[in-house]
Amino acid sequence: MSSRTLDFFFEPRSIAVIGASPNALKGGNALIKNLQRGYSGSIYPVNPKYVEIEGLPCFPKIAHIGAPVDLAIVFVSAHLVPEALRDCAAGGVKGVMIQSGGFAETGKKGRDLQETCRQISAENGMRLWGPNCMGLVDGRRNLVFSFLNPAMWEKGLTPGDVSLIVQSGMLSAGFLIDLMSHGTMGVSKVCSIGNKVDVDECELLEYLVSDMDTAAVALYLEGISKGRAFLDVARRSTRPIVVLKGGKSPRGAQAAMSHTASLSGDDRVVRGALIQAGIVEAKDFKQMMDLSRALAMASEGMRPGGVAVLTFSGGAGILSADFLTNHGMDVAILSGETCRRLEAFFPPWMPVANPIDLWPAAELVGGAEAYRRAVEVVMDDDNVNVLLLHAFAGGFRLDLGLEALASVSKHKGKPIFFWLLGMHDEAMAFQRRAQSLGMPVYRELSRAVEALHAVCCHGTRGPEMAVQNPPEPVPVEIRSALQEVLGSTPPVDGPLDEFESKKILSSVNIPTVQEAIVADSTQALSTAQRFGFPVVLKGLAQGKIHRTELGLIKLDLFNRKQILLAFEELIDRLEGAGRVLIQKQIKPDVELICGMIRDRQFGPAVMFGVGGVFAELYEDIAFRIAPLSRRDALHMMDSIRAKPLLAGFREKMPIDRDKLAQVLTALGWIGLEAPRVTEIDINPVAVVNGKPVALDATVVLRQPNE
Amino acid sequence: MSSRTLDFFFEPRSIAVIGASPNALKGGNALIKNLQRGYSGSIYPVNPKYVEIEGLPCFPKIAHIGAPVDLAIVFVSAHLVPEALRDCAAGGVKGVMIQSGGFAETGKKGRDLQETCRQISAENGMRLWGPNCMGLVDGRRNLVFSFLNPAMWEKGLTPGDVSLIVQSGMLSAGFLIDLMSHGTMGVSKVCSIGNKVDVDECELLEYLVSDMDTAAVALYLEGISKGRAFLDVARRSTRPIVVLKGGKSPRGAQAAMSHTASLSGDDRVVRGALIQAGIVEAKDFKQMMDLSRALAMASEGMRPGGVAVLTFSGGAGILSADFLTNHGMDVAILSGETCRRLEAFFPPWMPVANPIDLWPAAELVGGAEAYRRAVEVVMDDDNVNVLLLHAFAGGFRLDLGLEALASVSKHKGKPIFFWLLGMHDEAMAFQRRAQSLGMPVYRELSRAVEALHAVCCHGTRGPEMAVQNPPEPVPVEIRSALQEVLGSTPPVDGPLDEFESKKILSSVNIPTVQEAIVADSTQALSTAQRFGFPVVLKGLAQGKIHRTELGLIKLDLFNRKQILLAFEELIDRLEGAGRVLIQKQIKPDVELICGMIRDRQFGPAVMFGVGGVFAELYEDIAFRIAPLSRRDALHMMDSIRAKPLLAGFREKMPIDRDKLAQVLTALGWIGLEAPRVTEIDINPVAVVNGKPVALDATVVLRQPNE
Repeated sequence: MSSRTLDFFFEPRSIAVIGASPNALKGGNALIKNLQRGYSGSIYPVNPKYVEIEGLPCFPKIAHIGAPVDLAIVFVSAHLVPEALRDCAAGGVKGVMIQSGGFAETGKKGRDLQETCRQISAENGMRLWGPNCMGLVDGRRNLVFSFLNPAMWEKGLTPGDVSLIVQSGMLSAGFLIDLMSHGTMGVSKVCSIGNKVDVDECELLEYLVSDMDTAAVALYLEGISKGRAFLDVARRSTRPIVVLKGGKSPRGAQAAMSHTASLSGDDRVVRGALIQAGIVEAKDFKQMMDLSRALAMASEGMRPGGVAVLTFSGGAGILSADFLTNHGMDVAILSGETCRRLEAFFPPWMPVANPIDLWPAAELVGGAEAYRRAVEVVMDDDNVNVLLLHAFAGGFRLDLGLEALASVSKHKGKPIFFWLLGMHDEAMAFQRRAQSLGMPVYRELSRAVEALHAVCCHGTRGPEMAVQNPPEPVPVEIRSALQEVLGSTPPVDGPLDEFESKKILSSVNIPTVQEAIVADSTQALSTAQRFGFPVVLKGLAQGKIHRTELGLIKLDLFNRKQILLAFEELIDRLEGAGRVLIQKQIKPDVELICGMIRDRQFGPAVMFGVGGVFAELYEDIAFRIAPLSRRDALHMMDSIRAKPLLAGFREKMPIDRDKLAQVLTALGWIGLEAPRVTEIDINPVAVVNGKPVALDATVVLRQPNE
Repeated sequence: MSSRTLDFFFEPRSIAVIGASPNALKGGNALIKNLQRGYSGSIYPVNPKYVEIEGLPCFPKIAHIGAPVDLAIVFVSAHLVPEALRDCAAGGVKGVMIQSGGFAETGKKGRDLQETCRQISAENGMRLWGPNCMGLVDGRRNLVFSFLNPAMWEKGLTPGDVSLIVQSGMLSAGFLIDLMSHGTMGVSKVCSIGNKVDVDECELLEYLVSDMDTAAVALYLEGISKGRAFLDVARRSTRPIVVLKGGKSPRGAQAAMSHTASLSGDDRVVRGALIQAGIVEAKDFKQMMDLSRALAMASEGMRPGGVAVLTFSGGAGILSADFLTNHGMDVAILSGETCRRLEAFFPPWMPVANPIDLWPAAELVGGAEAYRRAVEVVMDDDNVNVLLLHAFAGGFRLDLGLEALASVSKHKGKPIFFWLLGMHDEAMAFQRRAQSLGMPVYRELSRAVEALHAVCCHGTRGPEMAVQNPPEPVPVEIRSALQEVLGSTPPVDGPLDEFESKKILSSVNIPTVQEAIVADSTQALSTAQRFGFPVVLKGLAQGKIHRTELGLIKLDLFNRKQILLAFEELIDRLEGAGRVLIQKQIKPDVELICGMIRDRQFGPAVMFGVGGVFAELYEDIAFRIAPLSRRDALHMMDSIRAKPLLAGFREKMPIDRDKLAQVLTALGWIGLEAPRVTEIDINPVAVVNGKPVALDATVVLRQPNE
């Protein structure tokens, strides 16, 4: 469905308000007044009790309007909504925004009512927005389609180019008003989506990333309904996207359940998914807006790279370097030429280095001149791609010539970020002016660095990147090999044994350790001679998963005698119920864990981490959603903190990154191709001389008939 | 030295300004004008060129004033400062504040000049503040002892009860003006200390923590001059202390060197030291002030414990729970009684749980009433010790009755923190009013939780805690045992061998593995029989530290033949230069690293972490400054992320925490008692059946004659 079909929500030619009221204390009155303040199309109050509201003729029903209605806003008691919807459908209304509450968020009865609404709209091809939402505000077109108190917009809307999608109603309102009245950030379209019975964040995102009035989209979501579709939209977007996801901690998720009946999913899967789709993850409400406004200003061509810090305080320079380093960003090393040119207006005792403390120069040539010349010089340095300027508004005669700065920034393609201290009014004015020129300003140093980092990271994504790094599709021969193995796999509902599990892995070309099922001790011995000593014997039996504790793993078998004894013992312990596996014994340089799970929101997801207790202790694992691109797989390896282990820690051979990427990609293929496979654990993937080999593995199946 | 001796800086009865000027563009003029605006003592401009400045008689030299001068503020070119100091000394001036720059921060010549100043003041018993600083501002007494532009104080100073010590001059000014003009936070004494040639952060901290006008102290420092003394002051303080330490990343530290010639020290040592002294560590400038103002408001008797979140938005409630959990804080589980009382005014479909979404109740009984009743109920719940209230100022008719809230909060001893959204002016007014009633307000949710966390943590410190947990002094018998061993230790300048190292550890009762030096293979064999098999043989030789690589460690010796062969080989590899050590071979359940280093700022510091590559990879180590209290040692174990390993991970026996605490404490004793020992590594400390044992160790000595 083309996103343009949502135009009747954003640009309706006529609006009916069902539940309009002349009572100034009611939302049904606020709706009319809010429309009157900026909306230029036709407004039709609907309420059988009145003939006129706020100077407009009031209609008893939609059917009486006698003119086409693009959008109906419904604000009546929940139990009256289905009837209103039927009226709308009969009247040819294109979209309905239900702002009333009392639906799925209130339990069983409300859920049924909501389902009735969904059915009415589906049957009539009429789109629904909400219910239980605050509607829509458009800061650029000066539109308020909401029951919120008109007093809030008295001072006017501040137009901007960040659009918002907010699941929580009150929050979207609170947010919006807070932002608007501070004047240092404007908005384009603010969408409060509530229970999203029909129109959801995915469809709205698709609409907004191609909206001419939107330069960046920020979303606060408690659950992502259609995870994979959402990621697809994000991946194709040229506009930066920021997501704040509520409900992360166990307690948080619990609250999410009882709040909007939304599913929270595993925090780590969500994080991986967002990274994969090039979405910036926000941590807090205000921070989400702080990052969004920088991203909206960022020139699309910005290259990530070295940062130069120009400051009036050595101390703040030091702290900036700390923050940049913590974000993994480069504090640019200035070229010799740059240093020479800077030294020309610095006192001779001052060693010039980045961060550049301009105070000593300011005392010689004046503050404004020191800044002007330093920016000019630093902009010429090829090692510098971004500038972080510390500024002070009011009191220090530091008029920075913002127009000239913006112009050189644009000309050189090197963005400027400001950290600003100063007197309240002067600082506000400075911020507004700088931001109108495309240079984001922050009052908190760490926030300035976070925003700078977000913009630099965004520079490495976008549709171009998506084209260059397509997800690896499942090769035909892999698909058929996998299906063949699955066809001959026992119809288990639960974990397959190690040998059967590895057959599935082998079918998608994941390297596995040399192994065989042996029927008797003679066969065990001959196989051991073929593999070479030492070997391992393992007893496999359905349901016996704690094999070490059950004595079903026999390591360090170096000779005939040891093998015979071990085989005997295993047969004994298996009590006739299983079989014996022999493996070449491998001493890994490093042990990894790879796996696949099915996430409720995103479907098959691939997991990667280091083996042993530490991945668990330090929660150092990464997820990506299948299918993975080669870049996704490599990025996954780079994203764990134990990554130095992969690069040849303590004289070991560095891992073959391509081979490991193939393992990760192939795990995703199984998830995509084999719905019966619910979970895979390869624990460990042994790395020997840089090559990954599945040493032990469990594939979990669900009932074939499901 | 009693801190009261600094009164002549903070409350001088008379002030001379050396370098006073009638030129309104000069700092020497600003100094006079700033004094005139609020200082009620005598002001004496000093400058041989003028007879009158700003209506005051001007003196050519201090000697001409003819009245006692408590404080002289010097603002003349650096090379003229020594002469001015001599004049001050001759005139009986008690304290001099040098605000001029051009000293140690400018290289060799400036350093010499600064040293001259130090000598003059030391010889004359006259105290020096600065040089290269912005002086002092007192928001409560309305005093500005600074050359900063008088325009900055035009709107007046906002009095508050947080005092500041700031090393960086420009920063202290920027800060102050930013804070003042925003009106949501006031200050008491703001001290810009510059190069601190005499008066330093330690002495000022001591002064401020007993200052009646100061409820909390915040410090921005690039280096801590007298680390141990600083910690002692902090430990004894009843006032909360917040420190922001600049110069952490390698690049940051580099900048610190060239900025104030200050030493940065090891970030991790600093962190440990701050924790140990109960100091809150800040991350950023604004955040430091945000935490300080909460700490200044916090009632001293506050108990840490469960947090109740009251919100107008389920989404914000979820995120609050996330933030609290991430800070390791409890989201309180409401008692049954509390739930019943809440349900009385909630709609029946609403399951009441913490975080408490008040919106559904607000729709029934009104917003203000819902908040009022919910606070009343929650305050009675013994599971709740702190309240986090989400508020909205303006627009929603949510007048919260702040006086009543503050009163119930004080009565119950349960602090209230606010996260506030809202319209700009209304929000400002709300914040001022709430804070004047002792309830801190934040505009960013995560910041509100950070502040709440800081206040709760502070509740567990203070002088009472210090008395209950004194550092463990070195027992007399340990001291003599240690000195005896050191007396017989070879006069090495560098690492001692493993055997000599462990003799030192044993002398302070650190358990070590059973081991002996063996002269020949016969002795090796008889010792092995005594220890029990398997054993380890190690070749010890001066300077051969990579023993594994040199083949000097022989593990897994199970029988006579293996011992004889191994002994032969070691003798061969040692080439007559060393000796052979035999050890009982131990299989540790867990391996730890413990150590001691000498920090430039804090002296002997004890290190603790898990063994193997992971402590290094995840930087999961903790430091504390010697001497350690038992609580310090236990807290150190709890502070590493790998702490579950100590509690009996995967069916191992939990570690004997007391025994491990003794090891850590004893390492500190060596640092305190033996200045020759520069470094100790016990790597690993093996844990076997819960008991720690030093398996391998290196003690590094420096030249005895040093």
